[in-house]
Amino acid sequence: MSKRTADTLRLLAADMVEKAQSGHPGLPMGMADCAAVLWTKFLRLNPADPDWPGRDRFVMSGGHGSALLYGLLHLAGYGITLDDLKAFRQWGSVTPGHPEREIPGVETTTGPLGQGLANAVGMAMAAGMAAARWNDETFSLFGDHYIYCFCGDGDLMEGVSHEASSLAGHLGLDRLICFYDNNGITIDGKTDLTFSENVAMRYRAYGWQVLEIDGHDQEQIERAILEAQKEKGKPSLIVARTHIAFGSPNRQDTPEAHGSPLGGEELRLTKEKLGFPPDRSFYIPEEAKKEFAGHAGKVKPEYDAWQLRYREWQEKHPEAYRAYVGQVSKIFPEDLREHLLSGLKNKDNSTRAHSGNILQTLEKNIPGLVGGSADLAGSNKTTLKQGGDLSRGNFKGRNIHFGIREFAMGAILNGISLYGCGFIPFGGTFLVFSDYMRSAIRMAALMKVQVIYVFTHDSIFVGEDGPTHQPVEQLMSLRLIPGLTVLRPADERETMESWITALENREGPTAIVLTRQTCPEQLRERPDGIQHFKRGAYIVKDTSGTPDMILAGSGSELSLCAEAAGMLASEGCAARVVSVPSYETFLQQDEAYRESLFPTGNIPVFIVEAGRTLGWREITGNPGRVIGMDRFGSSAPGEELAEKFGFTAKAVYHSIKAWLDKAERKLV
Amino acid sequence: MSKRTADTLRLLAADMVEKAQSGHPGLPMGMADCAAVLWTKFLRLNPADPDWPGRDRFVMSGGHGSALLYGLLHLAGYGITLDDLKAFRQWGSVTPGHPEREIPGVETTTGPLGQGLANAVGMAMAAGMAAARWNDETFSLFGDHYIYCFCGDGDLMEGVSHEASSLAGHLGLDRLICFYDNNGITIDGKTDLTFSENVAMRYRAYGWQVLEIDGHDQEQIERAILEAQKEKGKPSLIVARTHIAFGSPNRQDTPEAHGSPLGGEELRLTKEKLGFPPDRSFYIPEEAKKEFAGHAGKVKPEYDAWQLRYREWQEKHPEAYRAYVGQVSKIFPEDLREHLLSGLKNKDNSTRAHSGNILQTLEKNIPGLVGGSADLAGSNKTTLKQGGDLSRGNFKGRNIHFGIREFAMGAILNGISLYGCGFIPFGGTFLVFSDYMRSAIRMAALMKVQVIYVFTHDSIFVGEDGPTHQPVEQLMSLRLIPGLTVLRPADERETMESWITALENREGPTAIVLTRQTCPEQLRERPDGIQHFKRGAYIVKDTSGTPDMILAGSGSELSLCAEAAGMLASEGCAARVVSVPSYETFLQQDEAYRESLFPTGNIPVFIVEAGRTLGWREITGNPGRVIGMDRFGSSAPGEELAEKFGFTAKAVYHSIKAWLDKAERKLV
Repeated sequence: MSKRTADTLRLLAADMVEKAQSGHPGLPMGMADCAAVLWTKFLRLNPADPDWPGRDRFVMSGGHGSALLYGLLHLAGYGITLDDLKAFRQWGSVTPGHPEREIPGVETTTGPLGQGLANAVGMAMAAGMAAARWNDETFSLFGDHYIYCFCGDGDLMEGVSHEASSLAGHLGLDRLICFYDNNGITIDGKTDLTFSENVAMRYRAYGWQVLEIDGHDQEQIERAILEAQKEKGKPSLIVARTHIAFGSPNRQDTPEAHGSPLGGEELRLTKEKLGFPPDRSFYIPEEAKKEFAGHAGKVKPEYDAWQLRYREWQEKHPEAYRAYVGQVSKIFPEDLREHLLSGLKNKDNSTRAHSGNILQTLEKNIPGLVGGSADLAGSNKTTLKQGGDLSRGNFKGRNIHFGIREFAMGAILNGISLYGCGFIPFGGTFLVFSDYMRSAIRMAALMKVQVIYVFTHDSIFVGEDGPTHQPVEQLMSLRLIPGLTVLRPADERETMESWITALENREGPTAIVLTRQTCPEQLRERPDGIQHFKRGAYIVKDTSGTPDMILAGSGSELSLCAEAAGMLASEGCAARVVSVPSYETFLQQDEAYRESLFPTGNIPVFIVEAGRTLGWREITGNPGRVIGMDRFGSSAPGEELAEKFGFTAKAVYHSIKAWLDKAERKLV
Repeated sequence: MSKRTADTLRLLAADMVEKAQSGHPGLPMGMADCAAVLWTKFLRLNPADPDWPGRDRFVMSGGHGSALLYGLLHLAGYGITLDDLKAFRQWGSVTPGHPEREIPGVETTTGPLGQGLANAVGMAMAAGMAAARWNDETFSLFGDHYIYCFCGDGDLMEGVSHEASSLAGHLGLDRLICFYDNNGITIDGKTDLTFSENVAMRYRAYGWQVLEIDGHDQEQIERAILEAQKEKGKPSLIVARTHIAFGSPNRQDTPEAHGSPLGGEELRLTKEKLGFPPDRSFYIPEEAKKEFAGHAGKVKPEYDAWQLRYREWQEKHPEAYRAYVGQVSKIFPEDLREHLLSGLKNKDNSTRAHSGNILQTLEKNIPGLVGGSADLAGSNKTTLKQGGDLSRGNFKGRNIHFGIREFAMGAILNGISLYGCGFIPFGGTFLVFSDYMRSAIRMAALMKVQVIYVFTHDSIFVGEDGPTHQPVEQLMSLRLIPGLTVLRPADERETMESWITALENREGPTAIVLTRQTCPEQLRERPDGIQHFKRGAYIVKDTSGTPDMILAGSGSELSLCAEAAGMLASEGCAARVVSVPSYETFLQQDEAYRESLFPTGNIPVFIVEAGRTLGWREITGNPGRVIGMDRFGSSAPGEELAEKFGFTAKAVYHSIKAWLDKAERKLV
């Protein structure tokens, strides 16, 4: 068995943490047996081809166990060197504090608890979708592998684990095999301080197979994995009773072992106890190397066979192959834009309705596009009408019903995107509930994965549902997440451009923010303007000479700017109107472009957006005013709220006039 | 039985939604039987004294069922008139789309799913704490009542329900009785689209008593409530099989009934079917009125008896009574500030360590202060060292172990605060994980409840844990939540002032944002400056004449400003140094105060804060620069990150010099 290998992994992790004087030895030492068995007897990987679609996926949901993962990657031959292990948690190393998905062999970035498990659920869904799309009676190249996930008490206490696991059970994701590192210890002490639920029973209630084992008995571990693999129609949870910091004479089973180095003396004692040379660090016995090499030697022929079958498939099913390659490349039909343009209805409607319409064209043209909503498909207009529902029996379905589980939806979208195979996942909910999934959005941005959020009901104009459902701060607050593109289109054409931008943004997530209520179509007096949509802002209506003022807005408030400009024009006041569909994109443009819209100087700028005003001064500069919502909304019909909160063209006009009068007085 | 009363509630709700042409009839019609039994046979309330401490609490977790609650409040005599019911969801009404806690009889604002249930858990915890504090062998005035909660599929799908329910089971909160409205329908269709878990089994796994009944059989409902009340040591879940929109001939059991008016004709048919005059709206039969009045008549003597006992208690236990009144009033000892000042250590340390020290003084002086951390008590320094642990057997304990459940923690804190009795709850986690609980923070702000968040590890200086654990956008993004006070102290004295501010802020939540790493104590050259702490910003170090520039920062970056100012001074450049512990508070100050710190004109302002720069231009105005973090961080020791990302005094100094050089060139 792999006892020696497990101890090697234990001590590598302990050495890494000791050298860095920072990190978490407890989890790696506790889970080393499970890891050793899994990685030397089961896991099908090829370090020479880390993106091999047929590989098993391994997710360390408790990302603080990174030292275990790096040890595994080193031993498995992933090109993480001993020096890399010694640089654990140092600047520029490939062995950062928590696993980051840029590192070959790391499938997803983890650390914020519970999300890794939900990523794994997303991967298992994607595996099912890949299998349903391209496998047939003779070829089973895709999705024919397992998603393994290690999770701990923290993962299972977090609500997102509930959401994702409930859905995984519902869908019967039998390719998903999770280990629960049941060590009875959290940072603050024994888990019985806070956690006495019956996890096994809870998972059975979700419809999972649950296996309970001694997490240090390698035979039990092996049998449990075999049993999990055999189970059809259910994901499996292997509850492994473990000891945190197993092997450390004085730290085992203590909370201190969770996040502190063992200390030089204790590390020595541990090595002694485990029969390792007590004074050697980063020592790897030959047995461990051999065991990993032996397993790799067994997997290699499987890998070669897969490649052979893949080439056979390519020959025998050229059409399926083309479809596959087309999806993986994420290259869209050249005439997609024309298709979309010709599908536009050119009439006033809510931007969510426009989006729903545009989605139907995208459905036909982008086979990798899959997604759904957290139980608001009808409101979010996210249904792909010809796509069918993804369900236990039908993984061809392209409409995913996430249930009322926003956070899991976010993390599952990440998992689907990370899986590869060209899936472009989208997920919808009300903008105000982006708060429920905010950490998953952040993770998408940090990982630079392509995910699209459809956030509808984007302002107080939600109306009667009242302040609990009316976003105010969410819009600007999403713009704060580095690497997230936020688009708030004003009309049908901008909604179309938003979708194109999102689809072309392969290196990060995009949020498309849409109205519940009808928005008038914009007259674009400068028809070339829309070509600058991608720059985040562009001129919708300009003045012949230098403008007296500039009115700018996003989404439903753009029309107020245009209307107010009309009123001002009738008084001889020439206003430029600028659409700002993407605030943060615009701020990243070169100075020349920014100046061409909002010249530095004394032309006052007025912004209208039904959200927090904070941040807009970046654009207005000093002279100017932002008409926004700096308080919570209220329950009443939308039109009435518009009156009460000053979001009518008339109110905007008066507000501008009042400002000008005051400014003039000041100048005198 | 209360069949007629239940039907009255059904039709009142349907009429309200019909009149508003907006709202949710399905839930009220489905849960009307449970509501009628609970409100006419069990619930102990006194509308004349809505804040009666001995009352039962009723939480409608699915806030979209507001029409049911308003009907109940009307019938129970809470001063919601028929005209109010007719103004459902209209501007200025006391019957908004979702229940808002300002309305007498509404215990908590609900709508965002799952949180009401977690609020109820918080209330049950507070009830236990009140009982443990003031009850004895002879008097049982406090916490001797039940917390009832209605929840639906949505609540139970949301992760926060898992977190809160697991903790409720762990603590054995037997005063908590929840109804699960098991109607098999969600907005998008039947629940079997997404939700096939065994809820009863799941709750048994949490350690709850689970009772399964027909939710339209009033005898079963009554028996279940009695059984739930009898259970000692476990919360109860009553799984009520119901029909959404029960009574509507064509809408019952359909997803459409969830959120759309029945329509005039269907409403007529429903009234007919239920034996009500089909053409009358808002009709209340005498039987229903009588039933409510009859129940109120039974509760009144209990209320009077409680008041009598309360006065007896007051006489016989004057000390306990004083303690009680002292806690409820939230009036702190007059010498609290002196106590705190005398407890200061006056030496460099992390602000989290200062906070931990200050908490010990607060513990002694503010008995209502209770709280803890989401399994990071040691890191957040949130432990009240003499307070004892709150646990199943000990509700006197003041340290709450929330487990790794940030979102539930947030919603539970709201519940504890809403419960009354002067509890001031606080909860800690890492700043980056404020994302997990963001919606609960928003709800605290919307409800204007006093809750204190202790967010430590507040920047990239978290160090080795890397970007998943390093907040970047969280600080500014919390400042965007209307009504939330965000404080980021720079040293020990500011940490003390932050706690005082938070304790005095009774009308809303406060986030105290603290460092992991050591911050030098600030030399306050203007010792009066700190008196302006509450204004959000104040001068730490001034120049004799007009300053050449102003350097401002918050938290750990204030010291960089001070040091850089010193370097600049040695070159004859006079810089004012301003501390900005609360950005949004400062922006709310009058113009005169703002001008006294940052005068309009040409004095350049430099801001240093290790977070997103967006928003700071509100303060810098046009000339100036913000030195911040507009990207994700990296895993390495904190000092190294400071070097790499330009957060050393030297780097700040050079950055300012470079800006000045460039600006000068521009002026030429």
